[in-house]
Amino acid sequence: ITMPYSSCFLFERLSASQLERIKAIPSELKIQKGQWLFREDEEAQNFYLIKEGAIELLTVVDGKIEIPISMVRAKNGCFGISALVAPFRYSLSARAADDSILLVFKRENLEKLKLEDPGLVCIMMNNLAEKLLARLKETRKELKIHFMNLVRSAAF
Amino acid sequence: ITMPYSSCFLFERLSASQLERIKAIPSELKIQKGQWLFREDEEAQNFYLIKEGAIELLTVVDGKIEIPISMVRAKNGCFGISALVAPFRYSLSARAADDSILLVFKRENLEKLKLEDPGLVCIMMNNLAEKLLARLKETRKELKIHFMNLVRSAAF
Repeated sequence: ITMPYSSCFLFERLSASQLERIKAIPSELKIQKGQWLFREDEEAQNFYLIKEGAIELLTVVDGKIEIPISMVRAKNGCFGISALVAPFRYSLSARAADDSILLVFKRENLEKLKLEDPGLVCIMMNNLAEKLLARLKETRKELKIHFMNLVRSAAF
Repeated sequence: ITMPYSSCFLFERLSASQLERIKAIPSELKIQKGQWLFREDEEAQNFYLIKEGAIELLTVVDGKIEIPISMVRAKNGCFGISALVAPFRYSLSARAADDSILLVFKRENLEKLKLEDPGLVCIMMNNLAEKLLARLKETRKELKIHFMNLVRSAAF
């Protein structure tokens, strides 16, 4: 497994032949620094792998305040998992933090893969569930810290 | 699909024969009001379905303050998904809010099912990924509300 595929948790535990199948799917997209890829709440059309560059994921509060969530680079490189699961809506916005080259997996091609090779997609779904559970636990911890701060500030 | 199986998102889209296979797995457990089933950070040994009663899921802050997360009843009835995905650790604590009857799925039996019937488990993993993504989005929204409150209170 070579870059950029080795950088994405979704492709862990795939066999060499399964990986070949994956590599035949995406098309390349060049995007310039500052360009938006998608906005939160939009329909999730694509899943992305980063070949070069950096993409920032963020959420916007009160229509103007940007909260950075994470920076995705070629070495830890995939995002857009909302294109893999119903109801297929992005929960964050994505913008190029640098001139970047992306590999684009269209949702329709991933859906086709589900029908053609369920065993492969099953491994990906297991990887995805693991990742999502880990993220949910992290997000809950953050929420807990906020709560603790509130409780402590109320105590004084 | 009949109760309590129909109450759990994990078993959606299973065929009648797949559901029969699932029904052969669990054993019954009676638990009294106030008893703890598991604590957060413990190794996740079991996945549970509620046949009768109610279980509260909660997290403990500062070693003493309990934050209720959700109340699970027979009609919306399963919990313990940490037993389905690595690293197999509960992220919340569970206590009986009422005298309850549970169906207990041991992790080892679920792992065996993964080997024996990957197609079945694949559907469950897909259901799980959907649920986890939805929960992650909700939790992020809560975090965003906390953040907005902070920003607003700082502005005055």
